[in-house]
Amino acid sequence: MIDGDPRNVIAAKRDGLAVDPEELRAFVLGYARGEVADQQAAAFVMAAYLNGLDDAETLTLTRAMVDSGETLPLERISRPKVDKHSTGGVADGVTLVFAPLAACLGLAVAKLSGRGLGHTGGTLDKLESIPGLRTDLEPAAFERQVEEIGCAVAGQTADLVPADGALYALRDATATVASIPLIAASVMSKKLAVGSDLILLDVKAGSGAFMKTLEDANALARACAALARDWGRSTRVAVTDMSQPLGDAIGNALDIVEAVEVLRGRMRGRLRDAAVMFAGEGLSRLTGIGMGEGRAAAASALDDGRALEAFRAMVAAQGGDPRVVDDAESVLPRAPVRRPILADAAGTLAIVDAEALGRASGDLGAARGRKADPIDPAVGIVFRPKIGDAIEAGQVLGEVHARTEDEAEGAAASVRSALTLVEGEVEPPPLVYDWQGQMRP
Amino acid sequence: MIDGDPRNVIAAKRDGLAVDPEELRAFVLGYARGEVADQQAAAFVMAAYLNGLDDAETLTLTRAMVDSGETLPLERISRPKVDKHSTGGVADGVTLVFAPLAACLGLAVAKLSGRGLGHTGGTLDKLESIPGLRTDLEPAAFERQVEEIGCAVAGQTADLVPADGALYALRDATATVASIPLIAASVMSKKLAVGSDLILLDVKAGSGAFMKTLEDANALARACAALARDWGRSTRVAVTDMSQPLGDAIGNALDIVEAVEVLRGRMRGRLRDAAVMFAGEGLSRLTGIGMGEGRAAAASALDDGRALEAFRAMVAAQGGDPRVVDDAESVLPRAPVRRPILADAAGTLAIVDAEALGRASGDLGAARGRKADPIDPAVGIVFRPKIGDAIEAGQVLGEVHARTEDEAEGAAASVRSALTLVEGEVEPPPLVYDWQGQMRP
Repeated sequence: MIDGDPRNVIAAKRDGLAVDPEELRAFVLGYARGEVADQQAAAFVMAAYLNGLDDAETLTLTRAMVDSGETLPLERISRPKVDKHSTGGVADGVTLVFAPLAACLGLAVAKLSGRGLGHTGGTLDKLESIPGLRTDLEPAAFERQVEEIGCAVAGQTADLVPADGALYALRDATATVASIPLIAASVMSKKLAVGSDLILLDVKAGSGAFMKTLEDANALARACAALARDWGRSTRVAVTDMSQPLGDAIGNALDIVEAVEVLRGRMRGRLRDAAVMFAGEGLSRLTGIGMGEGRAAAASALDDGRALEAFRAMVAAQGGDPRVVDDAESVLPRAPVRRPILADAAGTLAIVDAEALGRASGDLGAARGRKADPIDPAVGIVFRPKIGDAIEAGQVLGEVHARTEDEAEGAAASVRSALTLVEGEVEPPPLVYDWQGQMRP
Repeated sequence: MIDGDPRNVIAAKRDGLAVDPEELRAFVLGYARGEVADQQAAAFVMAAYLNGLDDAETLTLTRAMVDSGETLPLERISRPKVDKHSTGGVADGVTLVFAPLAACLGLAVAKLSGRGLGHTGGTLDKLESIPGLRTDLEPAAFERQVEEIGCAVAGQTADLVPADGALYALRDATATVASIPLIAASVMSKKLAVGSDLILLDVKAGSGAFMKTLEDANALARACAALARDWGRSTRVAVTDMSQPLGDAIGNALDIVEAVEVLRGRMRGRLRDAAVMFAGEGLSRLTGIGMGEGRAAAASALDDGRALEAFRAMVAAQGGDPRVVDDAESVLPRAPVRRPILADAAGTLAIVDAEALGRASGDLGAARGRKADPIDPAVGIVFRPKIGDAIEAGQVLGEVHARTEDEAEGAAASVRSALTLVEGEVEPPPLVYDWQGQMRP
């Protein structure tokens, strides 16, 4: 602390009073430097969890988090720069499709990504299932690749927003993760630390998301949009459905296979729709063309192979085997056991516990319980039906890819018990509930 | 933790749900053993600060705190055992008088005491201003002295309720001190860990106390009484006035001089009245005599010199110079500068900022800002007027005992600005607002 007692910040938040911005900033920077104790930060985040943070406090917190480390202004990128981030869902491979798709449309996607944790997979983990592919790019190489190819996906370094890593670990240990302003600060700090002309945010709502209710997802979207507005950065935030897996693949190599199918223009459905929507949004907002025109351009780029070629170039630039775009299944690691998942009854699919599907895949080895755990790139679940689909008894719903027969059996049973079938018709949920956010004037 | 995740305890308290008693106990014991992290304990105490603890949770917390260390059952004491504790005030030397007074009336007072911190002095610090006097008594020697003389005052060892020391430091660092159930658990854990037939608690209310309002003091008294009731121990809790210094002496050696005057039967006033009241309460509750009879017996023991002789015996047994009871001022350390405090206006004393008087004395060196700081036994303030007294301009209100003229001047100015004089009469506050608590059936 330059001046002042860290307890002033804690006490103000504890009492629901306005927190002095200078003191809050010094508190966060002091915490990042190890001068404010973990126990003081823990007391503050619990007080913030219970009493909230207003927009101004969230902005101050986020600015201090960004200022705790290095930033990546990406000033040498000549194309319009778009960043895209999802708050995390099951079978959410949109980024894998979006990055090369936006790149082939003339945008630049400099994507810094985290590891998957809990029941949702991470983009880095999925990409690293491609033999040889590296995500530990140096900043200069990362920027050069984005300028040359239009896209790159790399791991966040510890120098970028170090306060976020420290605060996240603290919140995880102290039961204070589920605070909307703290989540907004965590998500947005990492976006705001990277130079971009537009931030596209996908806030997921439903059984497979961290925000289980639409109300919470809307509140998080609002907080993120407000933060970008107050910072002076253009942001568009979609609140999208995560009441079921977005795509079909829940794993790592399996997601790459699926992304390649979408990038090749062969696979239709919600994953493609989401990628087209975000690419169209980015293209329209950054180039001034109409939204319909933007989406049409994105759809064409999937159908005529340009997006796939951008993906091939990105994989190759990052050291991965580019043949993955020609024959993904033979290049990627494969699990020894493949077992179909059969429906044990007939009916219309009404409810999917998407988190349970994510956990079932994680139990096979596709996700990590702790940050340092290894993951098994080959295993996972493919689950094809969507809400509203009619299902026959005995129908093949998908496949389990596992290490052992026992594990495959267990995963198939978990999938079946995550489903609710009903008689009659069921209205499929919309893909998008709402858009928020604004362009910088 | 034997089993369970510490976050369960934090999350339950965070959400205002019932905390599982076994999990709370494991959390506290785990914290005392260093297995639950400081940051987790900090998040819990902030959640407890904001959402409260009910009587059952406070009992579970307190039991676990006591079970975190050694206890002192004092089973070899043959007399009725009475413990007496004040939540801390300015010029609150009651324990110095009470211990020998109760002892000479046939009771046993085994007093474990803490150091003074902040603006209120500690009994240990005051006693240690007597040359040679030791308060680091071994448990066996402590118990033997109580049995032989009827009283002993010793420092708490780190083995007694170690969780309290750790939790107090944590609360101090995290702005979570002022929580009534946490204060009750802290105060009572140290009393419940020591064997006694009756706990007398003096909860102070007013400008010189930690509880500034009568409402807070009543709530703390209620929480402490409930804790003793649920534990099964007899307790009587007085809520007493601390809207002005109780005695006249605010220091360390100065308090010993004053205590000797009261013990000799020479000094009347609120300090004597409080000591007589607590001794009478203890004698009456533990021997079955009437309350009036108990108080009369206590007053007689002050007036006929028995209490003073008990004090002499206690001082001698603890290695102190027993001549302090004959000529306190020549035995005790004296400050080089003594300066009268003169009233700068006339009027009736209406309001005293007792905490400001405590701080002024602390600034002279009589109190410590941090636990490890040394104190200066000789310095302090004597302030004689009480609320309701008529004061003349230029009247001598007391004296400052200081190291330098400058410090004396500053303290005298602080005292003057802590006073509010008005025209007309002012009703003095009562000594006692309320009694709570109950004898064990």
